[in-house]
Amino acid sequence: MSSKTFEGNYFEDFKMGQILRHATPRTITTGDVSLYSALYGMRFALQSSDEFARNVGYAGNGGLESAPVDDLLAFHVVFGKTVPDISINAVANLGYADCRFLLPVYPGDTLRAVSTVIGLKENSNGKTGNVYVRTEGVNQLGEPVLEYVRWVMINKRTPSPAESAPEAVLPDLPEAVRLEDLTIPEGLSYVTYESSLAGSDYMWEDYAVGEKISHVDGMTIEAADHMLATRLYQNTAKVHFNLHAMKEGRLGERIVYGGHVISLARALSFNGLSNAQTVLAINAGRHVNPCIAGDTVYAWSEVLDKAEVPGRDDLGALRVRLVALKDRTPEGFPYKTPEGKYDPAVLLDLDIWLLLPRRMA
Amino acid sequence: MSSKTFEGNYFEDFKMGQILRHATPRTITTGDVSLYSALYGMRFALQSSDEFARNVGYAGNGGLESAPVDDLLAFHVVFGKTVPDISINAVANLGYADCRFLLPVYPGDTLRAVSTVIGLKENSNGKTGNVYVRTEGVNQLGEPVLEYVRWVMINKRTPSPAESAPEAVLPDLPEAVRLEDLTIPEGLSYVTYESSLAGSDYMWEDYAVGEKISHVDGMTIEAADHMLATRLYQNTAKVHFNLHAMKEGRLGERIVYGGHVISLARALSFNGLSNAQTVLAINAGRHVNPCIAGDTVYAWSEVLDKAEVPGRDDLGALRVRLVALKDRTPEGFPYKTPEGKYDPAVLLDLDIWLLLPRRMA
Amino acid sequence: MSSKTFEGNYFEDFKMGQILRHATPRTITTGDVSLYSALYGMRFALQSSDEFARNVGYAGNGGLESAPVDDLLAFHVVFGKTVPDISINAVANLGYADCRFLLPVYPGDTLRAVSTVIGLKENSNGKTGNVYVRTEGVNQLGEPVLEYVRWVMINKRTPSPAESAPEAVLPDLPEAVRLEDLTIPEGLSYVTYESSLAGSDYMWEDYAVGEKISHVDGMTIEAADHMLATRLYQNTAKVHFNLHAMKEGRLGERIVYGGHVISLARALSFNGLSNAQTVLAINAGRHVNPCIAGDTVYAWSEVLDKAEVPGRDDLGALRVRLVALKDRTPEGFPYKTPEGKYDPAVLLDLDIWLLLPRRMA
Repeated sequence: MSSKTFEGNYFEDFKMGQILRHATPRTITTGDVSLYSALYGMRFALQSSDEFARNVGYAGNGGLESAPVDDLLAFHVVFGKTVPDISINAVANLGYADCRFLLPVYPGDTLRAVSTVIGLKENSNGKTGNVYVRTEGVNQLGEPVLEYVRWVMINKRTPSPAESAPEAVLPDLPEAVRLEDLTIPEGLSYVTYESSLAGSDYMWEDYAVGEKISHVDGMTIEAADHMLATRLYQNTAKVHFNLHAMKEGRLGERIVYGGHVISLARALSFNGLSNAQTVLAINAGRHVNPCIAGDTVYAWSEVLDKAEVPGRDDLGALRVRLVALKDRTPEGFPYKTPEGKYDPAVLLDLDIWLLLPRRMA
Repeated sequence: MSSKTFEGNYFEDFKMGQILRHATPRTITTGDVSLYSALYGMRFALQSSDEFARNVGYAGNGGLESAPVDDLLAFHVVFGKTVPDISINAVANLGYADCRFLLPVYPGDTLRAVSTVIGLKENSNGKTGNVYVRTEGVNQLGEPVLEYVRWVMINKRTPSPAESAPEAVLPDLPEAVRLEDLTIPEGLSYVTYESSLAGSDYMWEDYAVGEKISHVDGMTIEAADHMLATRLYQNTAKVHFNLHAMKEGRLGERIVYGGHVISLARALSFNGLSNAQTVLAINAGRHVNPCIAGDTVYAWSEVLDKAEVPGRDDLGALRVRLVALKDRTPEGFPYKTPEGKYDPAVLLDLDIWLLLPRRMA
Repeated sequence: MSSKTFEGNYFEDFKMGQILRHATPRTITTGDVSLYSALYGMRFALQSSDEFARNVGYAGNGGLESAPVDDLLAFHVVFGKTVPDISINAVANLGYADCRFLLPVYPGDTLRAVSTVIGLKENSNGKTGNVYVRTEGVNQLGEPVLEYVRWVMINKRTPSPAESAPEAVLPDLPEAVRLEDLTIPEGLSYVTYESSLAGSDYMWEDYAVGEKISHVDGMTIEAADHMLATRLYQNTAKVHFNLHAMKEGRLGERIVYGGHVISLARALSFNGLSNAQTVLAINAGRHVNPCIAGDTVYAWSEVLDKAEVPGRDDLGALRVRLVALKDRTPEGFPYKTPEGKYDPAVLLDLDIWLLLPRRMA
């Protein structure tokens, strides 16, 4: 076999402080936005309407299109680039933290991604290790548009006795992104916000900490759906695409890219959180169970915290736990057992900061 | 469960003359056009080629793109917005009437929708009622681009004895849109029409009232296809998406959005009606049977009427019955039994006005 | 049945030298590019990033977008137009030859297609004949963007004894496109090529004639995938779409458009040929076995030849055999038996010229 084929990095290939510049810069277009719409049925007004976006201060790109793309579309595109270098040999995608959206991404922007290794920990079995990377998505002007930390369990090229493992280095990660680290898009003003266009009169003031919201609807995933999405993000992880190989595995099927479930849950959350137009941060995220084609995804939310934005009376931040379920309706809010184990129906446990308009005086 | 979740309107929630401004304005893009192409395989030259559109007088949007989007794409986008307010609790989508296309929609246009309740009739079972709405799709300049009437059977929130039902009010609907109410797009001229590019030499003159056309080809619907389409239109009706819920139902499957079948039938009608570049009106429409993934759709047409357009010798209108079938080839033109009941293979019975070029002197 | 339905041409309808101007000009958009991305997971930097394309000299269309569309997307769009006239009654798509890419195609370009009959040969069974056509794809300025020869076996309308067959005329086809007939895009310069963005350091110099490359990954085809693709190309061949008809056939399923397999193989070849940004020519191509939904496609390549481009030290051409397999991993490079018969796993045998950057002095 030719050595020109890249088989991805193994645990031993990562070094603390190592910088990985990921391949294939990608220009985002309105074609991507349409596909994102078709894949998830997103209904937030800000990303659906150039008019709505312009009206609340989004400047657009080159004056032509004004609506920013969905925050999670930008996230998936950046994430996708990192897969060949970071997680192609991953056993598990363990978690996300400290993900902050820094600049709106518009059709016409070209994104690339750079990761830095910020933590390494070999596992005691000597077969795998955990790698922590901080990834930055950068636009064509060199401006960071988002950044996040994720950690994955990666196979070692050569399994070795655990006693030989180097000392573990774990990054210091915030439990949640601090308020002062949230970025409100420049120019954004919800003074002229039209809630009738957005689909709901529930503003920031109307949500109470501890409140739970059932998002009612379920969406069944087809194999074509999740593969179209994952290829759109240029994410190459073989577990998503190769039935010939995966049918021999435990699930007998291709595993749905976890980000696909995140976007589905976010789309479902429109019914109950219609005015939560943007995601400011992903504080923490975990894919609790694998998802395959044929699964029906439901979602519910719990308000974890509320925060005023200093100097602003037109908008406020809401910290929400967004939980995705599989083949189980959300009205009972299934989450964890008294012993702290996840209910088997839980697919995703995501902790996010959302930005909402406030009710103007 | 939080009350912030909108569960949709029930029959009792509708009042005569009530105006519903539907959520989520949506900017149509060339991305939507590509997806529409990929979903139906549309081959009409007018919507496929900026050059062709410019050549027959379409002005485009901002001078950049000239081809108008498919009339039915605009219809589906407008329709989709009405679903959460009108038909989320519908038992059946009973019919369409008086649908007129008023202005071309171009990529870059932002559409919103407003509906007015024009008829209400409680059914004798006390459990459901029929609601008639007239819906208008409006662009970013506030210009109406299309309007239509549809009526749906909607559950009552609280079933009550039929004797308590208020008096029925039924709208006065035309059997077909009158010629003088058809709108020929401003600036359109078929004087320079190139039938070789359009794919057929059959002009308005060549069609005879009573003529039936078999559109030959069949297209099988996949679950991913119809869900991608329906999400693209931001249509949220749960019956289209949730297998977990629907597998317990009579069909054991998600029901295909009726508009998907309309677009498929229209695309199939290209073979036989290649020069029918635009739909001027939907006179009447009825989804006769439900359609699910795996069904193969065929179509046939019958010419019901022909009309000259006053003052124009370059184009004429053709009234056509477009019938979609399921798993049955169209050459026998299956339609109704002698007793007037639909053949079980019929999915759709659509009565439309089409605009065709005339053979120039 | 109305005669307005076009049933396609039969063998008897083709004449030597006949020119067929195919219907439905089509404007390519960034929406098509996004769909192409989503369908194949293409990762070549040149078609993914406007910035990357501008940096190596692509001028774009009207100054707005600079990345050219994938060569094979342009090919499929041109090919699709020819299907109703050429191959709707085909029994088999026998081969391609002498396909040359002449001009970059950009979003905004409108393509049409013209074919000339260059060979005819009735088969001895009297039931079918082979038709050879040279097809040219032309943009809105009338400039040829690509051309190719293909030949198909087509049913006769009226089977007749073979002794009555006219004399066969076979075109003179090159075994491979000659170097002097390859077109390097005007303005292209790889002097500023950034291999870190492209994803690999392997340049033209690094490939040796006879070298074989396993492209490792497999991609499973879903019915929705290949039908979305084939409709996007406005290819109407019924064998791809109609399960109702095809389930009675030998395969019991719709056949995947051969071009879909070509694009999948090309996308898979990124891992091993990341810097082969453009296809200059298809020397020869053959669909060895049919492919249906559920098949997992793998690919391998063999370097057949290398050529310097006169006067250029920034780029060179590589002649590669690209082989697609079905449900068989590529590491053993399955191809032909010692007797010269194809291994049953082989789907596609494609011989192409690729353009790669050279390592600058």
